Amino acid sequence: MKVGDEVFVAPSGVQKERIQPDDLFILDAKMQVTCRPPSEAKLDKPFKESECTPLFFNAFSMRGAGACMHTHSPNAVMATILFGDEFRISHIEMIKGIVDAETKQAHMFNDTLVVPIIDNTNFERDLTASMAEAMLKYPKTNCVLVRRHGCYVWGESWQKCKAMCECYDYLFGMAIEMKRHGVPTVTPSS
Amino acid sequence: MKVGDEVFVAPSGVQKERIQPDDLFILDAKMQVTCRPPSEAKLDKPFKESECTPLFFNAFSMRGAGACMHTHSPNAVMATILFGDEFRISHIEMIKGIVDAETKQAHMFNDTLVVPIIDNTNFERDLTASMAEAMLKYPKTNCVLVRRHGCYVWGESWQKCKAMCECYDYLFGMAIEMKRHGVPTVTPSS
Amino acid sequence: MKVGDEVFVAPSGVQKERIQPDDLFILDAKMQVTCRPPSEAKLDKPFKESECTPLFFNAFSMRGAGACMHTHSPNAVMATILFGDEFRISHIEMIKGIVDAETKQAHMFNDTLVVPIIDNTNFERDLTASMAEAMLKYPKTNCVLVRRHGCYVWGESWQKCKAMCECYDYLFGMAIEMKRHGVPTVTPSS
Amino acid sequence: MKVGDEVFVAPSGVQKERIQPDDLFILDAKMQVTCRPPSEAKLDKPFKESECTPLFFNAFSMRGAGACMHTHSPNAVMATILFGDEFRISHIEMIKGIVDAETKQAHMFNDTLVVPIIDNTNFERDLTASMAEAMLKYPKTNCVLVRRHGCYVWGESWQKCKAMCECYDYLFGMAIEMKRHGVPTVTPSS
Repeated sequence: MKVGDEVFVAPSGVQKERIQPDDLFILDAKMQVTCRPPSEAKLDKPFKESECTPLFFNAFSMRGAGACMHTHSPNAVMATILFGDEFRISHIEMIKGIVDAETKQAHMFNDTLVVPIIDNTNFERDLTASMAEAMLKYPKTNCVLVRRHGCYVWGESWQKCKAMCECYDYLFGMAIEMKRHGVPTVTPSS
Repeated sequence: MKVGDEVFVAPSGVQKERIQPDDLFILDAKMQVTCRPPSEAKLDKPFKESECTPLFFNAFSMRGAGACMHTHSPNAVMATILFGDEFRISHIEMIKGIVDAETKQAHMFNDTLVVPIIDNTNFERDLTASMAEAMLKYPKTNCVLVRRHGCYVWGESWQKCKAMCECYDYLFGMAIEMKRHGVPTVTPSS
Repeated sequence: MKVGDEVFVAPSGVQKERIQPDDLFILDAKMQVTCRPPSEAKLDKPFKESECTPLFFNAFSMRGAGACMHTHSPNAVMATILFGDEFRISHIEMIKGIVDAETKQAHMFNDTLVVPIIDNTNFERDLTASMAEAMLKYPKTNCVLVRRHGCYVWGESWQKCKAMCECYDYLFGMAIEMKRHGVPTVTPSS
Repeated sequence: MKVGDEVFVAPSGVQKERIQPDDLFILDAKMQVTCRPPSEAKLDKPFKESECTPLFFNAFSMRGAGACMHTHSPNAVMATILFGDEFRISHIEMIKGIVDAETKQAHMFNDTLVVPIIDNTNFERDLTASMAEAMLKYPKTNCVLVRRHGCYVWGESWQKCKAMCECYDYLFGMAIEMKRHGVPTVTPSS
């Protein structure tokens, strides 16, 4: 999450549902830590900022995002297993919850939503370049799927980021169900 | 939700789980806003009343409903994908949770519950006429499904509306499961 | 739920998650209401005791149960659709959570748990006789499934009733999954 | 859970979500009860320590674990039904949440995670020897699956144990979904 020039990043390898404000790192626009988590003083070994930090900064620097999330959602992972290099879905109302990042307009019901899928790597930081490449190639997207891993979603505020993350997850789940029933996820516009 | 002649409508494009009483619009019986959300004063740009407002008013004016809900439930959407112009189910106890809007009696276990499915449009307000048409054609129903979108459910009070919404959703989910196992959703009465 | 000779029964047609102690009926051992819900005074029309009351009393009178529950669980309903006149499962650890009502001993892992399935009727009270018949025919069971409706589960205390209800529901769900994957739900003992 | 030489064990046959600190047994390193649950004084019949106690002690004595959990998770049970003597999965990011118990390093994305599956017995304590045998044969694992029963997961602290338990469960669920869609759970490393 970004507030002005300050970026708040969660520590790595902790139970995310237990994070308190005191557990967050503050970084500047150049990805340098300017303030370590105050709660760290009580720990045996220091926190490490999230492995995803350079990927979050892709969203901040390339798209001016105000927030970026990463999930390992089973729906996202299964979608990357059932689709090739792109996740594609059309004619589902929830598509309208996703803004076209290029035009800043909401998608229409009969648009085809396309989300790029990049291959996973052994180290999360090694995804930085391929995520950036996908973001350049797909200027309309607010999400990059990572094969057998999960997805990154960003938005201009944490509220819009969270709302779009929920819409994407709903669409991934719906597409899996559609495939299970043999229904194509993209239909020609009528 | 309708209290006397006042209709309370949620704002559009917000996180519904965070809505407070101060965030609601009040409209009169002619769908004119008589009171804007007091909390709006704190916002950069004003709230907009829910896109569904004219659809909610179909339920208020045509059926004298006390409440109307709209959901994007995955069960509802999947049901519209697996069924044609009507969702039909019989011989499931939960059917008895749905009142026949014409006779005002609860459905019987061996009745066939029929819910009309209308096609979706790019703009929610453009559903107003086809929803009204379906309501005229299906006087027994308290629900209209919208293809690849969700459903509208109404009832004489918010309690009955919510209870029926839960029953419909249960029945949509059950029908999907039945189809997955190759079981017909309507069986001839014994 | 039964405490001494008093039976506490929920009202019919209400949102079960909102029930307060003041909303309960108290009945005597002869199924006569001895105390109406105090909260009823605030209502326009009086509460009606649960439609299931005579079915609950089957468990109290025939089995000396301390509590009896009724659910419309999707797992229970789907199990009645996929099985014939008996639900049967063996070799699942959770079976040990169910007591044999005849011997009062827990089932063994390699026992076959059998739950009778009775046909549904248009009126819940018309199930009373067939539930009683199934209880006589299956003295080991603490549960009767009702086709396309749900199940009744009882136990010597509300704690044991609730725990067994959870075990039964887990087993119904597991059996549905096993059938979905083409795995038989009963295997010959090794 | 182990704190110093004291092991805290839950009572058997109770509703786990209602356990209070006063309900726990304290055992010494030799599996002798040194302190019975104080809350027991209020009960008609004494608590019994969890049936799993000797299995938990396998983790404490053979692996120096700080905590050990047992679940009957439907995902774990279904995985044991769909796999033979080993659960195997590779190329899913969540594998990195599981530490290799031999090297103390996290697994890599392209490692194959292997979890032994032992056969169930009528009495839980009879699993003690076969669980120990599997732990010797699979020094990398932090989990033993028990056919049609569930799994045991341990870790150096309760935090790591819980986190790994969640990762294993996610992976069991993902594997079931992959099999449902006909996707192999292990892919050759690229």
